[in-house]
Amino acid sequence: MTDQSATPPRPDTGANSMWGGRFAAGPDAIMQAINASIGFDQRMFAQDIRGSRAHAAMLAAQGIISPTDAEAIGEGLLTVLSEIEAGAFTFRPELEDIHMNVEARLKDLIGEPAGRLHTARSRNDQVATDFRLWVRDQCDAAISGLEALIAAALAQAEAGADWVMPGFTHLQSAQPVTWGHHMMAYVEMWGRDLSRFRDARARMNESPLGAAALAGTGFAIDRRATAAALGFDRPMANSLDAVSDRDFALEFLSAASICAMHLSRLAEELVIWSSAQFRFVAMSDKWSTGSSIMPQKRNPDAAELIRAKIGRILGATVALFTIMKGLPLAYSKDMQEDKEQTFDAADSLMLALAAMEGMLRDLSVNRDAMAAAAGAGFSTATDLADWLVREAGLPFREAHHATGALVAKAEARGIDLPELTLVEMQAVNPAITQEIYAVLGVDNSVASRTSYGGTAPVRVREQIAQWKERLA
Amino acid sequence: MTDQSATPPRPDTGANSMWGGRFAAGPDAIMQAINASIGFDQRMFAQDIRGSRAHAAMLAAQGIISPTDAEAIGEGLLTVLSEIEAGAFTFRPELEDIHMNVEARLKDLIGEPAGRLHTARSRNDQVATDFRLWVRDQCDAAISGLEALIAAALAQAEAGADWVMPGFTHLQSAQPVTWGHHMMAYVEMWGRDLSRFRDARARMNESPLGAAALAGTGFAIDRRATAAALGFDRPMANSLDAVSDRDFALEFLSAASICAMHLSRLAEELVIWSSAQFRFVAMSDKWSTGSSIMPQKRNPDAAELIRAKIGRILGATVALFTIMKGLPLAYSKDMQEDKEQTFDAADSLMLALAAMEGMLRDLSVNRDAMAAAAGAGFSTATDLADWLVREAGLPFREAHHATGALVAKAEARGIDLPELTLVEMQAVNPAITQEIYAVLGVDNSVASRTSYGGTAPVRVREQIAQWKERLA
Amino acid sequence: MTDQSATPPRPDTGANSMWGGRFAAGPDAIMQAINASIGFDQRMFAQDIRGSRAHAAMLAAQGIISPTDAEAIGEGLLTVLSEIEAGAFTFRPELEDIHMNVEARLKDLIGEPAGRLHTARSRNDQVATDFRLWVRDQCDAAISGLEALIAAALAQAEAGADWVMPGFTHLQSAQPVTWGHHMMAYVEMWGRDLSRFRDARARMNESPLGAAALAGTGFAIDRRATAAALGFDRPMANSLDAVSDRDFALEFLSAASICAMHLSRLAEELVIWSSAQFRFVAMSDKWSTGSSIMPQKRNPDAAELIRAKIGRILGATVALFTIMKGLPLAYSKDMQEDKEQTFDAADSLMLALAAMEGMLRDLSVNRDAMAAAAGAGFSTATDLADWLVREAGLPFREAHHATGALVAKAEARGIDLPELTLVEMQAVNPAITQEIYAVLGVDNSVASRTSYGGTAPVRVREQIAQWKERLA
Amino acid sequence: MTDQSATPPRPDTGANSMWGGRFAAGPDAIMQAINASIGFDQRMFAQDIRGSRAHAAMLAAQGIISPTDAEAIGEGLLTVLSEIEAGAFTFRPELEDIHMNVEARLKDLIGEPAGRLHTARSRNDQVATDFRLWVRDQCDAAISGLEALIAAALAQAEAGADWVMPGFTHLQSAQPVTWGHHMMAYVEMWGRDLSRFRDARARMNESPLGAAALAGTGFAIDRRATAAALGFDRPMANSLDAVSDRDFALEFLSAASICAMHLSRLAEELVIWSSAQFRFVAMSDKWSTGSSIMPQKRNPDAAELIRAKIGRILGATVALFTIMKGLPLAYSKDMQEDKEQTFDAADSLMLALAAMEGMLRDLSVNRDAMAAAAGAGFSTATDLADWLVREAGLPFREAHHATGALVAKAEARGIDLPELTLVEMQAVNPAITQEIYAVLGVDNSVASRTSYGGTAPVRVREQIAQWKERLA
Repeated sequence: MTDQSATPPRPDTGANSMWGGRFAAGPDAIMQAINASIGFDQRMFAQDIRGSRAHAAMLAAQGIISPTDAEAIGEGLLTVLSEIEAGAFTFRPELEDIHMNVEARLKDLIGEPAGRLHTARSRNDQVATDFRLWVRDQCDAAISGLEALIAAALAQAEAGADWVMPGFTHLQSAQPVTWGHHMMAYVEMWGRDLSRFRDARARMNESPLGAAALAGTGFAIDRRATAAALGFDRPMANSLDAVSDRDFALEFLSAASICAMHLSRLAEELVIWSSAQFRFVAMSDKWSTGSSIMPQKRNPDAAELIRAKIGRILGATVALFTIMKGLPLAYSKDMQEDKEQTFDAADSLMLALAAMEGMLRDLSVNRDAMAAAAGAGFSTATDLADWLVREAGLPFREAHHATGALVAKAEARGIDLPELTLVEMQAVNPAITQEIYAVLGVDNSVASRTSYGGTAPVRVREQIAQWKERLA
Repeated sequence: MTDQSATPPRPDTGANSMWGGRFAAGPDAIMQAINASIGFDQRMFAQDIRGSRAHAAMLAAQGIISPTDAEAIGEGLLTVLSEIEAGAFTFRPELEDIHMNVEARLKDLIGEPAGRLHTARSRNDQVATDFRLWVRDQCDAAISGLEALIAAALAQAEAGADWVMPGFTHLQSAQPVTWGHHMMAYVEMWGRDLSRFRDARARMNESPLGAAALAGTGFAIDRRATAAALGFDRPMANSLDAVSDRDFALEFLSAASICAMHLSRLAEELVIWSSAQFRFVAMSDKWSTGSSIMPQKRNPDAAELIRAKIGRILGATVALFTIMKGLPLAYSKDMQEDKEQTFDAADSLMLALAAMEGMLRDLSVNRDAMAAAAGAGFSTATDLADWLVREAGLPFREAHHATGALVAKAEARGIDLPELTLVEMQAVNPAITQEIYAVLGVDNSVASRTSYGGTAPVRVREQIAQWKERLA
Repeated sequence: MTDQSATPPRPDTGANSMWGGRFAAGPDAIMQAINASIGFDQRMFAQDIRGSRAHAAMLAAQGIISPTDAEAIGEGLLTVLSEIEAGAFTFRPELEDIHMNVEARLKDLIGEPAGRLHTARSRNDQVATDFRLWVRDQCDAAISGLEALIAAALAQAEAGADWVMPGFTHLQSAQPVTWGHHMMAYVEMWGRDLSRFRDARARMNESPLGAAALAGTGFAIDRRATAAALGFDRPMANSLDAVSDRDFALEFLSAASICAMHLSRLAEELVIWSSAQFRFVAMSDKWSTGSSIMPQKRNPDAAELIRAKIGRILGATVALFTIMKGLPLAYSKDMQEDKEQTFDAADSLMLALAAMEGMLRDLSVNRDAMAAAAGAGFSTATDLADWLVREAGLPFREAHHATGALVAKAEARGIDLPELTLVEMQAVNPAITQEIYAVLGVDNSVASRTSYGGTAPVRVREQIAQWKERLA
Repeated sequence: MTDQSATPPRPDTGANSMWGGRFAAGPDAIMQAINASIGFDQRMFAQDIRGSRAHAAMLAAQGIISPTDAEAIGEGLLTVLSEIEAGAFTFRPELEDIHMNVEARLKDLIGEPAGRLHTARSRNDQVATDFRLWVRDQCDAAISGLEALIAAALAQAEAGADWVMPGFTHLQSAQPVTWGHHMMAYVEMWGRDLSRFRDARARMNESPLGAAALAGTGFAIDRRATAAALGFDRPMANSLDAVSDRDFALEFLSAASICAMHLSRLAEELVIWSSAQFRFVAMSDKWSTGSSIMPQKRNPDAAELIRAKIGRILGATVALFTIMKGLPLAYSKDMQEDKEQTFDAADSLMLALAAMEGMLRDLSVNRDAMAAAAGAGFSTATDLADWLVREAGLPFREAHHATGALVAKAEARGIDLPELTLVEMQAVNPAITQEIYAVLGVDNSVASRTSYGGTAPVRVREQIAQWKERLA
């Protein structure tokens, strides 16, 4: 992308750069290397051709070009599309970008009418349209990827709605929770991610096409028509804004970074849980790599790579923010650097979503190991204290004091809380009765946490049901 | 913030740290320096007290504490609030955080019932609630700040809806636009910023309160009641998620970064435009600094500082993303680092919005300098070419060729396009008629760009009218 | 910091801003909030006064001001210094920055000669000098902090030069290593961090003083004299560069980010190792927090907070890079935003270094748990394979194949490698002899890895000895 | 890169993944997409082969493999090298990475001895060696690029050592400087960049080879020999550190970010200076793009793209920092994400350096426009004030006051300072004499600033001479 007022290529002049003429010296290899975008923007060929077809149809409908020319252009562009899809298209770096490559090929195919396609348009609104369409597609892809991932997590949650595991704080066991509850925590996070991509999509879904170089045009174009043809909700209301801003890409990148952050947390948990010391889960062979020499070993490669993606996506986000910082309106060439960052971040996100979905679907959960860990470390001390408040009427602070004393007593004897006798308990606080033992088991503990959003299986199953309905 | 199951402070024991007891050695100065958050989280005192009052009222309504205790707690918290607001409160670092500072003072004031406030609650859901309320307030502040800024830009746009200025690409004059059109481009950007903060606010407006440490609670609490009392739309659906995620802060920071990016662009333009070489605008004394020795000089300090804020806000965003990367659920102490970053970014954004609004309101625009610049550099060459397509029926490419030739001729003679005679023009293309001169003036140029979103004053005024209605 | 040519304050005029005069309207509260730096740059008071004293002495030595004035200035500045150090100094926001605050107070103290201090100087070179001195001090602090931390790690390494622990890849046990070897890995990393701070310090150790506003000065100043007085190696060679660049701060921040990354890795390990599932280490009470209700619990708060610091420091680094991006020479007000970022990052680093040192010194290592884990998971399979290559002459690949078969056999029987009988082994490969058992124990394994830099205790002790000598 | 103990590929088994055997299900397309690195790490083929050749030679010298095998390996690797260089090598994704691709081809070529190459080595130390060699090469490239760029700037500085231009602060003219002085400011910055790359190179120049998987090896290898063969100064002292850290890449990226920041500043200046309003410089056709319709127009595309590169490089830096955050030792698969970031940043930097060098060499400087701008805006007011201090003995503050009054008088009359009559001047301060006029011209102004590092042509030429000597 070079200039808002550039002509179509003039291959007939023999010049190897499209502005030809006045520039005695051609840009040399360095300039081409830094300037040409065809190496990456060819990826937007489908969007570019779709936009050009909508534009040509509108020009004809408005009487700006003839129906015959419009039809030739439309057909010719379909031919170009199929050539590119078939891998039969040669991209030429000297034509700089996808727009000029497509247009030059169109001229080869249909001749003179190709020169009318660019009427009332500029590469500035053209690239803004292409890129917006591309990012919009990625929002859709992220939404699909998240829906599939949520479905995989729901399946895990449903299977293990009452499987007890330690609930950690500071990676220290704090209170028992259930596997289903833990899975549903991620479902909530991904649900918000999903809504962020939906909001971003809705906000970006306005058409820049027709903004021309930067000021609009005097041709009697119909921007609502091209907007509708391209699935946009409406044309953008200011032509300078339309060609100058890339906030839609930054919003996509920000949402992707947040989603990647969520993925990195589960990835970290999977790495830790699949260690020999935890053994809460076992990765499927599909998502791990091994060692010929230690065949029992499964390295959680996919989880580690997913964990790393937040770095890559955040890096792309920082890159585009820094690039856009302080650019005067309207188009500056700096903005050409928007694409590779966004492409790479989108690819990384989609891959991470797909890999996480696969890992979750294929994950084996070691219910016994989790249950054993959940019961260790006096993890139901809070339940004991709450019982003292609720049933014995102790003030909160006094109940905590008594509980601490009981834990200390058990620890000193090397036993767990349920192994203390009633007499030992009553020595600490006489209000304690036999009923106390009912709250000291981990299953009772999780079953008792029935507050809205709590870990009780009954609550978790309600959440699962609601999410299944939401996805349906 | 330390632990999900910590008791209230026990100042009566004489220990200077609240977990006391088993820890023979107290944390030394380094530990306190790295661990205590009271130095910054005191800023959330109003949110903390508001949350505690809602919690106490709900506990009473549910019969978990007595009405008498609830009333004592509610009144006591109001006293603490007024003490803090009056600057009459001494924050104690050994009490670590705002929660313990408030609760310890409450105990001083009302005694034993203070110990019941923390029933069915943990510092984990408490801090999540406080911080969410605080960030929600910042969304509101950003929305207000943006509305005021948009109003200032609308006033500039209305005054100069037909003031001609150069439309730049690559900081080179490309086509004339109007001052009003340029201002409205920022109105559109800020309008999207505004909608981003609205979306973020709606998404974060769920209550973590009642999630307790991480697993919910067995007390018969009513989370919908506390949610409603705090203006939340609903309680969060998963207790682990409620205490573990900070995506709401990251979404706020991302929206703030995008907004700051937009501000940096106008700030850059203001710095360039107020240079002696451009002289498009003159900063008010209020927003610039001077030199005693060069009294005519006005340095655009405020614009430069606004330009810098994107760095600061983006830095905070990167910080929190990096902090959250790979943290296992639920609460980890790393998350204590979320606040200072968000506080600083929010302060920076609000200050930048206010300063930009002030600068815009007080800005003097040099209409003559802009008009002179708009007319230079053959800026209506595109109009000429478009006329040839539209009126003389030339194909787009041929029209551009003829225009290039005319510009070259004018440049060679050191004159501008309108100074070429009709004979000279017709020598290049005989289809040119006297009517061509009507499109060569900058006023005619902008007036002609009447496509939707174009720079024609009639279009710009429509946009202004719509925005005024939207804001009303 | 405002302008390169501003006069000293004129408190006698009654104006509340120092440029007074022409500016009819004073900057209002927003402008002061965004513009004044005294809220944070007061932290450089010692550097500012040191620089001013050197400057005044030089001016007198060069005959630019009188010895009497220079002495009055020098003494007056010492008074200001002691006032600030004693907390008896009132910083005035309307005087904007530390430079003007000090100078105004100096005028109060010594009257008219104070007005001569700013001869042949500007706030531009003054702030560059102050800030460079401040950052240089932080390099020294980082170097000291790293030396102390290395000493703590050496002590751990020395104690446990032969304590066996699992060497992990992908958090899966791969081969046994020693605790000392693991500690020494960090010593190497911190050693490189240390040399980075040394390089940065050497590179930044040039004096900007005397660059004046941006162009140097016509006064016959002696920049080498002030450079020497301030401990700089030489004056900077270009006055524009001297006042315009902040690469020294960026280099400090980059080195700090790398160091913080290293710290985050050990912090992560400490969090994982102190989990109930690993139990490799136990944090001292000094560096963890507990729970009154679960008195056995120790949350690794300090480790988690250290882990988070990379986010904070990296955020500051990104902030300053983004701020500096694209600033034209020479001084722009954007650069005022350099300080808070650098201050915060330096504080975070020093705190993290000190806390990590303390944690390491107080850390209890569970040698038995580590040894048990080191022996599990067929961790000496590589030793077996290497023995087959080395002693039995098998090609590498065949040796690996045989080893895999032996591990599979052991795994199928639920035993470890050393428990396989010689007959069982020879069934897989007849070249195996009784000697094989010597390499299957973890102690033998680590003892055998005597390649340079290997984990054999003999090698580790050599490294320790070298480092102790280096630090001495 | 997968595992420290993986065998060479076993293409004979028909399995499509190299760990084969136990893994019933092969990794599917997603796993291969996220896991395989051959798509990018093939770029290190030369480093990989160089490292393997050194390793094989050492194994033979130590008697670990036979001379015959070593020779076969060495020759075979040269064949692989020439195949890759000739584009005649087919990289196979199912072999995952460059190491396995090279080794598999080697086996095709030489058969069984290929299986001995990996003795006493692991892919962990292999990839660390390859990558370190690659980054070291990039340090050298950056150093060369910087030297060429400095030479181009020196040529500009030499030509314009006494060309007067405005020295800006806040993009407002502050004092006259010379073109040569401005160029030399960048020479200083790039000189520090150069020394940063030298320091980074020296620090990273240690060999990881022989660290094996993570613990060293029991084979009697000679790490000093391989280090020497590969141009490293010494082997790394700790095997865990050798395979675990990527600080060398982060240091390279940090230095690259600082250098890119410097480039962005000159790029910004070139964009501003080539605007129609400034016209200080004219870009060569080689480094700008044009418009067929406005043939006089030159868009500074190369400068804008260079300006953007800081975003891209900083993004890569943030990515790798975030990836490395909190990774336990030793190798984790996350670290595979180090390469693409570093590759892209290095490419961006080298391209930006080359393009900037070209632009500077081909840049036309408009000496007249700069001189005219330098003289405007009372830019010698500081000279006048300094004269009053120096020659008329006024205190600094009084001199500034008088100067301000003279500027105000001149401004009111619409004239510049030298046009004020002596009588007018003396009315403000009677100490003023005819000699004052000598300091009011811009040439006199710059000539007078002879302090070390000042803008006086005599000083600038000294700097140029020193730098030419330094580069020679």
